[in-house]
Amino acid sequence: MTSITLGTGVLWHGGKAIPGCPEALQKLKELGKKIFYVTNNSSKTRAQVADKCRNMGFPADLENVVCTAHISALYLKNMNFTGKVYMVGNSSMAAALDELGIRYEGIGPDVVAASEASFDSVAKYQTEWKPNPEVRCVLVGFDPHISYVKMIKAATYASNKNNLFLATNEDPFLPTQDSVVIPGTGSIVATVKIPARREPHIMGKPGTAMFDMLHEVHGLQAEKTIMVGDSLKTDIAMGVNCGIKSMLVLTGVDDLRRVEENQNSDDPHCRQVVPDYYIDSFATLGEYI
Amino acid sequence: MTSITLGTGVLWHGGKAIPGCPEALQKLKELGKKIFYVTNNSSKTRAQVADKCRNMGFPADLENVVCTAHISALYLKNMNFTGKVYMVGNSSMAAALDELGIRYEGIGPDVVAASEASFDSVAKYQTEWKPNPEVRCVLVGFDPHISYVKMIKAATYASNKNNLFLATNEDPFLPTQDSVVIPGTGSIVATVKIPARREPHIMGKPGTAMFDMLHEVHGLQAEKTIMVGDSLKTDIAMGVNCGIKSMLVLTGVDDLRRVEENQNSDDPHCRQVVPDYYIDSFATLGEYI
Repeated sequence: MTSITLGTGVLWHGGKAIPGCPEALQKLKELGKKIFYVTNNSSKTRAQVADKCRNMGFPADLENVVCTAHISALYLKNMNFTGKVYMVGNSSMAAALDELGIRYEGIGPDVVAASEASFDSVAKYQTEWKPNPEVRCVLVGFDPHISYVKMIKAATYASNKNNLFLATNEDPFLPTQDSVVIPGTGSIVATVKIPARREPHIMGKPGTAMFDMLHEVHGLQAEKTIMVGDSLKTDIAMGVNCGIKSMLVLTGVDDLRRVEENQNSDDPHCRQVVPDYYIDSFATLGEYI
Repeated sequence: MTSITLGTGVLWHGGKAIPGCPEALQKLKELGKKIFYVTNNSSKTRAQVADKCRNMGFPADLENVVCTAHISALYLKNMNFTGKVYMVGNSSMAAALDELGIRYEGIGPDVVAASEASFDSVAKYQTEWKPNPEVRCVLVGFDPHISYVKMIKAATYASNKNNLFLATNEDPFLPTQDSVVIPGTGSIVATVKIPARREPHIMGKPGTAMFDMLHEVHGLQAEKTIMVGDSLKTDIAMGVNCGIKSMLVLTGVDDLRRVEENQNSDDPHCRQVVPDYYIDSFATLGEYI
């Protein structure tokens, strides 16, 4: 293997590096391996992720970071998209679109007035709001200002089959260590795709757009790359979808019981989502080098 | 048949009665048939629906209206629920809960501050917000103030298996006659059930709670009742689930092509959702009487 793509879930927990992981990655870098950090988190720019990595002692530059905000902008740039994006998103996604000159609207709060509590007053959007004909794409990511008005607008644009419909990722919730549930982007994407009756094209894991970019821009070859991650549904499934080897790290979301469940699943797609290797912690890899 | 349960979609379109329908229902009433209006719309009280019916010339009293706001409150009342409800809902649902003395919280706007755009600032809910131990039920209905903060709170309560998790209905979108998509309660329910990893108990169609109430309170018998409606997924499926005959009216959501699709479906549940009868318009029935 000459290249390693890493889900960031294997690197840190609750804002702290997993002991031994920074050293393991430094060793791999010294051995000449290309390392890429691959995250579905759409509320961080590449620069922010690179900073976070370096602050924890991981070797990282802008070029080593693959994040869904940047990949979404790059995807539109590469297809010479000239329309406007209706974005359900955040300031990091906005920064990524700005960087590549993609126009957008929809960022920030957009709510019904506090007094407009009944359905009838909301239904006025049906008669009073006019879609912007410049909008040719809906991009949905993490948006703490998700609202019913945004759902109406995004679903209307997405239901037009002539428009692109992209989502950064569909993670249903975020990993947390206590009982408060933090909904993920998948919960926000659902508010658009259900009324629009249409599935979005997923920019992040387990989609293939990230590896496609790494292949085109950095020359990564499928047979010489390994995807390392802690989540079967995103990391390992991305490996499977891209035809690259994968390794499950057991410090995070999924354990070997979940791997067995997939192996014994009735769903043929699920049965494929099994890693080629597994390891207790990424730090362990450092000890073997 | 001595009793007729009617989805309100067969009565009006865009705020106007379908011609001939009020007369058909008056005739049926004069023949001694019991008539019940059954609506999934959670943003109307029984009184509001009865008023709307009467204003259009349909025979209706409070007792003839079965709506999801009322049924949800009645469901909790009948199980002697003494806790508090965390409600993602609207003022009509609040009125229905008030009427039966059920306590609730969560109504109205509850948003992150405009400045809190990044994920990190939202994540503070994980550390700063404390669930109310009095809350023992989550009830999700139509809520034009749906927000990320509400998603966090509702998903947290719903993920606790000791709490009840109810939803008024799961209609994905509302029927409209132009290109603007109006998301339905199903799109709002998804924002809670996806991060909570749990399916709600559905109070409205196609669930059985409405007919159970009609049986208990009004003595309706399955073999002497017919469900008339325009939607296969809600009206006809309710008929099937309750073991009552059903009639599809072709003035609304579904046509005979959709019936054929269900008949030929690979999904055995879908194959059951086929009406016993169909008719062009409910008005036509009036001509036959």
